[in-house]
Amino acid sequence: MSVLERISTPEDLRALSLHEVTELAQEIRDFLVEKVSATGGHLGPNLGVVELTLGLHRVFQSPEDPIIFDTSHQSYVHKILTGRKEGFDQLRQKDGLSGYTSREESEHDWTESSHASAALSYADGLAKAFELRGEKHRKVVAVVGDGALTGGMCWEALNNIAGGNKRNVVIVVNDNGRSYSPTIGGFAANLAQLRTVPFYDKVMEQGKSTLKSLGWFGERTFEALHAFKEGVKSTVLPTEMFPDLGMKYIGPVNGHNVEAVEHALSYARDYEGPLIVHMVTEKGRGYAPAENDVAELMHSTGVINPKTGEPVGTKSPGWTSVFSKALVQAGRRREDVVAITAAMAGPTGLSAFGEEFPDRFFDVGIAEQHALTSAAGLALGGMHPVVAIYSTFLNRAFDQLLMDVGLLEQPVTIVLDRAGVTGSDGASHNGVWDFAITSVVPGIHVAAPRDGEQLKELFDASLDIEGPSVVRFPKGNLPAVIEPVHQLEDGVDVLAYLDADGEDDTPSVLMIAVGAMASFALDAAEQLRNEGLNVTVVDPRWVIPVAPSLAALADDHDLVVTIEDGVINGGIGSAINATLSATEVDTPVRNIAFPEIFPLHQSREQLLKVMQMDAEGIRAQTLEWAHNLF
Amino acid sequence: MSVLERISTPEDLRALSLHEVTELAQEIRDFLVEKVSATGGHLGPNLGVVELTLGLHRVFQSPEDPIIFDTSHQSYVHKILTGRKEGFDQLRQKDGLSGYTSREESEHDWTESSHASAALSYADGLAKAFELRGEKHRKVVAVVGDGALTGGMCWEALNNIAGGNKRNVVIVVNDNGRSYSPTIGGFAANLAQLRTVPFYDKVMEQGKSTLKSLGWFGERTFEALHAFKEGVKSTVLPTEMFPDLGMKYIGPVNGHNVEAVEHALSYARDYEGPLIVHMVTEKGRGYAPAENDVAELMHSTGVINPKTGEPVGTKSPGWTSVFSKALVQAGRRREDVVAITAAMAGPTGLSAFGEEFPDRFFDVGIAEQHALTSAAGLALGGMHPVVAIYSTFLNRAFDQLLMDVGLLEQPVTIVLDRAGVTGSDGASHNGVWDFAITSVVPGIHVAAPRDGEQLKELFDASLDIEGPSVVRFPKGNLPAVIEPVHQLEDGVDVLAYLDADGEDDTPSVLMIAVGAMASFALDAAEQLRNEGLNVTVVDPRWVIPVAPSLAALADDHDLVVTIEDGVINGGIGSAINATLSATEVDTPVRNIAFPEIFPLHQSREQLLKVMQMDAEGIRAQTLEWAHNLF
Repeated sequence: MSVLERISTPEDLRALSLHEVTELAQEIRDFLVEKVSATGGHLGPNLGVVELTLGLHRVFQSPEDPIIFDTSHQSYVHKILTGRKEGFDQLRQKDGLSGYTSREESEHDWTESSHASAALSYADGLAKAFELRGEKHRKVVAVVGDGALTGGMCWEALNNIAGGNKRNVVIVVNDNGRSYSPTIGGFAANLAQLRTVPFYDKVMEQGKSTLKSLGWFGERTFEALHAFKEGVKSTVLPTEMFPDLGMKYIGPVNGHNVEAVEHALSYARDYEGPLIVHMVTEKGRGYAPAENDVAELMHSTGVINPKTGEPVGTKSPGWTSVFSKALVQAGRRREDVVAITAAMAGPTGLSAFGEEFPDRFFDVGIAEQHALTSAAGLALGGMHPVVAIYSTFLNRAFDQLLMDVGLLEQPVTIVLDRAGVTGSDGASHNGVWDFAITSVVPGIHVAAPRDGEQLKELFDASLDIEGPSVVRFPKGNLPAVIEPVHQLEDGVDVLAYLDADGEDDTPSVLMIAVGAMASFALDAAEQLRNEGLNVTVVDPRWVIPVAPSLAALADDHDLVVTIEDGVINGGIGSAINATLSATEVDTPVRNIAFPEIFPLHQSREQLLKVMQMDAEGIRAQTLEWAHNLF
Repeated sequence: MSVLERISTPEDLRALSLHEVTELAQEIRDFLVEKVSATGGHLGPNLGVVELTLGLHRVFQSPEDPIIFDTSHQSYVHKILTGRKEGFDQLRQKDGLSGYTSREESEHDWTESSHASAALSYADGLAKAFELRGEKHRKVVAVVGDGALTGGMCWEALNNIAGGNKRNVVIVVNDNGRSYSPTIGGFAANLAQLRTVPFYDKVMEQGKSTLKSLGWFGERTFEALHAFKEGVKSTVLPTEMFPDLGMKYIGPVNGHNVEAVEHALSYARDYEGPLIVHMVTEKGRGYAPAENDVAELMHSTGVINPKTGEPVGTKSPGWTSVFSKALVQAGRRREDVVAITAAMAGPTGLSAFGEEFPDRFFDVGIAEQHALTSAAGLALGGMHPVVAIYSTFLNRAFDQLLMDVGLLEQPVTIVLDRAGVTGSDGASHNGVWDFAITSVVPGIHVAAPRDGEQLKELFDASLDIEGPSVVRFPKGNLPAVIEPVHQLEDGVDVLAYLDADGEDDTPSVLMIAVGAMASFALDAAEQLRNEGLNVTVVDPRWVIPVAPSLAALADDHDLVVTIEDGVINGGIGSAINATLSATEVDTPVRNIAFPEIFPLHQSREQLLKVMQMDAEGIRAQTLEWAHNLF
């Protein structure tokens, strides 16, 4: 029987010897490679936190002591140790295990959002609550990556955690020297310097004999450490990590040495007041294909061959690669084009631009706020910045988009990847809020290309707009190119006029399809024509501001159906409703959009079907509405 | 002729002797007190930056060297020195001088938003642009308060500015030891320590004779400073302010000594690479009534008696004070109620709660993101947090509201003051975006009380809601209490049934009035009845989720008019449109709301009138719509 088979709860784990823990670490690595290669997932980050997570669950009493994983894509080991290893065959699949922490799955999970840099703020709140409730014995642990520390939320939280109180917040910095990609900026340089000589090595070098005589390897280690404190203070307790804040700090600790990890965490557990533990780890540790993937260390993979790490199946070129090429071409045409990423150059398709134009490429860290406002600054200085970002992460920079780019009417193009329904990454990765937050920015232009050709055309057009603009497209493979029947003067593409029977009094439906929903709309329209409706399908391409021709078209039809993969309120349907109201066109309108819910993880296709947003859902709903009206 | 009379441009200023500059400083203080006491405005902050601003314009070449004022409410002196002193009689009034920087007013103004902590990001972008364009001789100056440095954006920006480059960003930290109120947190403690021995004094003590012999008071001062650099390095160039980032730093400088200010700024100008200059200033400096106002130092005043600083005219109790009392009462009833402010305890009405329940009161700094996510943490720990914040500043925490509070369905009450049209503080202070960003949060409850009684009732009710809730109210005096005719089962208040003539076929209008718009709607309805329309006026009170009875009511009327003081797209009218569409009620709807524009500063009343959102505007628009329909 393997050690792993004997572990169902953190309790079981605490009964193991250090030797067994080391064995277990290897078994967990094998388990992760086997399971995640079959489903896809965040393999690299989890291989890096095996010993760290083992240490956390041996030293702290979860869930009495909450362990908050920042982003939580590194929570697989935690899931394995808290009774969920059987779920890994269905990782990230419908009705299966979430790729992030999930309160529904376990009492050991406290949070769910996958957005970075929030863990310290949760921890501050929890610690304040425990103090107020007289439960100060409960420790709160936050596990945060070095990359996430470049996010402003962490600074805000550290400033509050450090403010001279004695609340028991243990901040574990999981420092792998790279977040999604090598961490940038001044803080990264500081970390790099700190991590050169690991804590454990330093202690061993300087105090080996003394510690040994005091029982370093036995029960009395921590007492020893305390007793020894004065002597090694400058080594064990430097306060260099956040001296601005007076944050106490221990480390750097070799995050793959189970003994060193437990020592440090135990010290932190017994320390009164907030403390940072600096763990140095290696993303992808122990799995050769990950260790050899220098750029990304298998941060997130699809299905792979577990032996070689090579992707299984062929991958067709996606939306991102079309944008990536269009950007490089724009960079060659125009010297004023610069590109900005918030620590996701690879996933957002900026790497090629960065390689060709390193001076015009800026990775600002996981710092979406700074991405937008520094873009405004670049634009004020005469450049045309392109900020490429996942749709859901633009939520972090709404104020900066509105006030810093919008109010100053600066020519900044924001390219939103993974817009709309994303599915398998869970609720917080869906990009369904972008229309709601971009559409309220005065003077903004928002484009939703329906295919790769449109993406290139609309992105190029965005570079000539004087004010802010957005180009948003979904996750997944590129759909086939849809040629329009013709284009109206204000840029609206008519994709189909479908006439059921040539009669004048046949009820007519205007379908306004946003972006990639166009192909679903066309399929639905074909069927509706067969069911006796005249259907016109249009794609506005630029969805904000609302094209004037849409009101005129609406007036010529008996029913308007808007179709988009964003939330209903504040979306494009919403904007069209308001435009029709303002122009006093009272044709009945129905909005197909994403409801105000947080969906569980499942594939994009599954989710669109459940929401009745695929071709069949559009057809069925439209038919019912038409029946009720006509 | 006073010195001030001779100054129209920064050029004029640079011709003055140090003695004249000192004289000018006093004249500017007198000018500020005289003018701002008559109009209201940010008196305290501007009295604190007189010498600093003089120094900036003498040392740097604005606008060639951009000077970015963070928040820019401290830009009055800058305005005086850049040809706008005549405008101060109409400060913050319609068609008069803006209370913030404004690109329309002057080429010396680069930004406009009044939201804190953004200046460093603009500066980073501008410096990058200048470098790319081969204009590296241009320096970029950002002036930021110590309070604003608690905002996460600053950390993100510093991390990028510091990253080992040689771009010429000069960050002037205007450290008055308090932002709106005494700055909190670990960083504040660090600053307090730094500011104990001013730079100037230290240099004078340690190097006085040497410097003098090298011409400290003459032309050759800066060369002297450079030459002397090695000798006093540990004093003049400590790198203690942001050692995490390796940010170079000089200071602290006595920010009221014109000579010391100029020395430090000149050094910074000539330094190659980013540099922080730490200026210690006193808010309200030189004006006894401000210096005696210990709590706020006259951060922002209405019209005052210039001699005494006492407010002119009587002030009726406003919305904020109703909330303030209701919160204290809630705190007495329930031990789980805690309150959170982002550095605005006074303006948001939290001070009374903080005095009575200091343990349950948290000022997190200018850190809206942390305010929301630490609230989620407090709620996870069993408390019911109340986050009080100006509506416009919630924009900074949209992601945290959605992902950290909303996704976890935590019981957090968010109280939004200054919601809707605020007017005189200019575009970025208007609170017209809150409905758009709160309405998309799944499961949220949003209340818009129409008067003080409703505010208390709805706030109390919010404390019993299991998930996130919002209570939002406007700036200004409390309107008279409006008693409902009756209340529908789902909580909608019917405020009036106005029957024009008793005929069955008279066209009927349903007015759905949101919050404080109710009194305008009632006034308009009275007149419309006299003009032959039947009018029903309802106040939903809870505007999100949309009350089911509204669809039924809409079905019973011939025209629906929604009235709110938020932006159209994503607002309450928008949500009502969507609800009617979803329930297949096709009564024509018209939305009265705030358009997607950034309005110029003017009074709330003026702006509502211009936007046709006051009683007369509502009447006139409704009448026209009815005429076109019936």
